[in-house]
Amino acid sequence: MRMYDVIERKREGAELTEAQIRFVVDGYVAGEIPDYQMSAWLMAVFLRGMTDEETRLLTLAMMRSGDVVDLSGLPGATLDKHSTGGVGDKTSLAVVPMLAAMAPGEAFVAKMSGRGLGHTGGTLDKLESIPGFNIALTEEEFLETVRAHGGAIIGQTGNLAPADKLIYALRDVTATVDSIPLIASSIMSKKLAAGARCILLDVKVGSGAFMKTVPEAVKLARAMVAIGEGMGRRVSALVTNMDRPLGHAIGNALEVAEVVETLHGRGPADLTHEAVMLAGDLLALSGIAGAEEARARARRVIEDGSAFEKLCEIVRAQGGNDRALRDTVLLGAAPIQRELAAPADGHLTAIDTERVGIASAELGAGRLTLDDAIDHTAGIVLLKNVGDAVRAGEPVAVLHTATEARLADGMRTLSGALAFGDEPPAPAPLLYATVTAEGVTYADEAETA
Amino acid sequence: MRMYDVIERKREGAELTEAQIRFVVDGYVAGEIPDYQMSAWLMAVFLRGMTDEETRLLTLAMMRSGDVVDLSGLPGATLDKHSTGGVGDKTSLAVVPMLAAMAPGEAFVAKMSGRGLGHTGGTLDKLESIPGFNIALTEEEFLETVRAHGGAIIGQTGNLAPADKLIYALRDVTATVDSIPLIASSIMSKKLAAGARCILLDVKVGSGAFMKTVPEAVKLARAMVAIGEGMGRRVSALVTNMDRPLGHAIGNALEVAEVVETLHGRGPADLTHEAVMLAGDLLALSGIAGAEEARARARRVIEDGSAFEKLCEIVRAQGGNDRALRDTVLLGAAPIQRELAAPADGHLTAIDTERVGIASAELGAGRLTLDDAIDHTAGIVLLKNVGDAVRAGEPVAVLHTATEARLADGMRTLSGALAFGDEPPAPAPLLYATVTAEGVTYADEAETA
Repeated sequence: MRMYDVIERKREGAELTEAQIRFVVDGYVAGEIPDYQMSAWLMAVFLRGMTDEETRLLTLAMMRSGDVVDLSGLPGATLDKHSTGGVGDKTSLAVVPMLAAMAPGEAFVAKMSGRGLGHTGGTLDKLESIPGFNIALTEEEFLETVRAHGGAIIGQTGNLAPADKLIYALRDVTATVDSIPLIASSIMSKKLAAGARCILLDVKVGSGAFMKTVPEAVKLARAMVAIGEGMGRRVSALVTNMDRPLGHAIGNALEVAEVVETLHGRGPADLTHEAVMLAGDLLALSGIAGAEEARARARRVIEDGSAFEKLCEIVRAQGGNDRALRDTVLLGAAPIQRELAAPADGHLTAIDTERVGIASAELGAGRLTLDDAIDHTAGIVLLKNVGDAVRAGEPVAVLHTATEARLADGMRTLSGALAFGDEPPAPAPLLYATVTAEGVTYADEAETA
Repeated sequence: MRMYDVIERKREGAELTEAQIRFVVDGYVAGEIPDYQMSAWLMAVFLRGMTDEETRLLTLAMMRSGDVVDLSGLPGATLDKHSTGGVGDKTSLAVVPMLAAMAPGEAFVAKMSGRGLGHTGGTLDKLESIPGFNIALTEEEFLETVRAHGGAIIGQTGNLAPADKLIYALRDVTATVDSIPLIASSIMSKKLAAGARCILLDVKVGSGAFMKTVPEAVKLARAMVAIGEGMGRRVSALVTNMDRPLGHAIGNALEVAEVVETLHGRGPADLTHEAVMLAGDLLALSGIAGAEEARARARRVIEDGSAFEKLCEIVRAQGGNDRALRDTVLLGAAPIQRELAAPADGHLTAIDTERVGIASAELGAGRLTLDDAIDHTAGIVLLKNVGDAVRAGEPVAVLHTATEARLADGMRTLSGALAFGDEPPAPAPLLYATVTAEGVTYADEAETA
C-alpha cells in the first residue's frame, strides 16, 4: 500500500477501508509516513469528510496505537464523563463524588482529566489548589482508590492514544483542527482507551466553546455517540450552553469553593442543575437506575450531604487535605481583589465567554502557553449573569489576582467581554439537546414531553 | 502574516491576495514554510480551486522566484511553443526550423526543452541522438545562435522558476498534481521566465496525455492563455488529439528520422498537418503574417526544402553532425528489430497511447526512473494507425531494441496497448479546439467557418 494512493482516494471523496486507515495511523506513528503526506491527507479528510464507519475505524486505529486501561477488575459499572471544554466548567469535581455516593459498590468512576490551556480551565489544575492533592497516582493506586471509594481523578496514565497526540500536533499547525470526524475520533480514541463501559459526553456550544452553533454541536455529539456505541460501549451526550460561564466562579481555588457550596446545596442554579443532569444521566446510562430515579438520587446526595462527604473521602484518599474543603478559607485568597462596576443602568445582555476565560488566564488562573505557571488563587467571580438588571456603578464581577499589572490586563479584557443594554435578552436554555444511540431529543421537546 | 491563516483562508474557499500568495511562494522557497504546511495548502487549493487572478499571481510569484531570460536584444519577434507532453510528439524539432525559415530576420525561436520521463519522450533526448549535438549552451551562446540562425533548442539555462521545481516535487508525493490552477501556473511560470513574447501552447488530450477529456484540456488551455495574456504576452493554445501517437515513430533517433522525412514533405499526414498548424499559428500570433499567409508559408518551407536546410544549419551551429540528417542511416540502428503481427482480420480500433509510450521506454527509448540511461536507437515504428484494416499475421508495428529481455517486456506491453475489432471506429479529429484571448473555437465550427 502507498500513502499516495490513500491520499488520492480521500481527495476524490471515496470511502477508505479499515486496512487503509490502519496503514495511515500505524505508518504515521512509526514515522514511515512523512508529515507532508499526513497533512495533505488531513486536509483531504477535512474537505471531503468521513463516513461514520471511517470515523469509527480511525478512532479504533488511534485507540490501538497505545495502552488501553483495563477496568474489568472493578466490581460494578464503570462510568466516565467528558466535557469538550468550557469556562467555569467544574462539573467533574461535583459529578465524580455524586456518582460514587449515588450507587456505592455499584458505580465506579475512574476519571482521567487534563490541564487547562488558553481560555479553558483544566480539572487537574483545579484539584491541585487543594493542599496535598496528588493527581499522579500509579495505575494500581488509581484502580485501588476507585475500588475502595467509588471514584478518583488523575492525570492521564500510561501511553493512551499516542497517535492522537501526534496527529493533533500536526492538525494544530495545518488548519485541520475544526473537522467533525477528526475531533470526534480524537476525543473518543482517548475516552475509549481510558476503559469505562458507560460514557457521558458534555458537548459545549456557544461563545466559550469550540462548537459555535447547536447544529454543529449536535453533529459532533452524534458522531461521538456512534463511535462509542459502534465499539460496544454505552454512550450518550448532552449538548449544553456555553454562551456564559457555568456557575459564578472562574479560577482554580474559586471553582473548588463553588463546588463545595454546590455539594452543600447552596451553589448557583445552573451549575447545580447541570451537575444533577450529568450525574443522573450517567447513572441511568449504566442501567443501575431509571432516568427519574437517577436524577432523584443525584439531588438526594446533595441534600443529605453524602456527595460532599464522598468528595472529602476521595480527596483524602489522594493525599489532599479535606479540611480545606470544610473551611475553604484554607484554600487561600489572592492579595488583590477588585470589583468591576456596571457602566450604566440597564441589563447585562451578553457575555463573550471565551474572553472571560482569557481574562481569567491573564489574572494568573490559566496558561496562555504550555509553560506558564498557574496562580491557584487567581480568577473571576461573576456577581451578575446574562439577563440580570444592573445599576450604574454596581459591581458585576470581582477580579482576584496577585499583581496590579495582571489586574490591568484582566480588567481590560473582562470589560470588553461584557455587553450591557436596556432590555434583557430572551432567556437561553442550559440544555439544548440530548443525543443517544436512539437519536436526538431537543430540549424544548423534552420539556413538553 | 502566518501560513496557518493562509491555509485556513484557502480551506474556506476564499480568494487569496497577492501578498498572501507571494508569502506562500517566497516563504516555501526560503525554507521558512515547512513541507507539511505547504502540502496542506496545496490540497486545499486542489479541492477549493483558484480564481484566474489567483492563478496569475501564483504564476507570477513562481516566475519571480528565479532568473527571467531577457530576449529583448533579439532584433524581431520572439516565439516559443510548449507541448503538455505526448507520445511520438516530435513537433518542436520540425517547428523551430520551420519558423526560422518562414520569417528569417523577423522571427526568433529561443526554445528550452526538457527530457522525457515515464511514457512521454523529451526533445532533448531526441536531439542527443544526433552525433555531437550540444544541448548545454551558455546563455550567451544560446542567444547568439538564435540571433544568427533564427532558432536554437537547449536544456533549461540558469535558475528558472525554482519555486515550481520545489512545489512540483511536493505535489508529486502528495496527490496534488492533477489540478488546473497548479498545472497552469507550473507550466506558465517556466514559459514566462523563458522570455518569449509570443507563446503557442499545444495541449494534448487523450489516452497518452495528462488531460483525459476535451473539456478538461480546454479548461487548462484557457487558464494558461489567461495567465500569459494577463502578463502582457501573446498566448494561444491548440487542443490536439493524443488518443494515438503523433506520427508513426516513437523513440529518439526514429523520431529524428521521421522529422527529416516530414521536412522533406514525405512525413505522416497527422504530423505534417500538426507541424503546419503550430508553425503557422505561432507566426500569425506574432503578427508577422496573417493566419492564411502564415500556414501557406509553413507549407512552402517544407516544399522548397528550406525548413530542412534550416534544421541542418541549427544542428551544425549546436555542434551536431548534419550528415546524420542527410543520411539518417548515420543515426544508427537497434540490433534487434522485430515485428508485432495482427492477431486476426479486422481493424485497429484503438491505441492506449500511454501504454505505447511505456512499451517504448521498456525497449530502452525512455526513462522509467530519472536515473535510467537512454538507448537512442530503441523505440517503436507503427505501421498501422487507428482505423486501418489489418489481416491476420500482418505486421502492425516494428519494435527496435538492444536485448531480447527488453524486447519481451516491450512486446507484451505493446500487444496490450492495441485493440482490434471488426468495425473501424469513427474518425477522430487531430485538432479539437483553438483557445485564444478572445475565446474558444471548436474545430468543427472552424471547419464550417
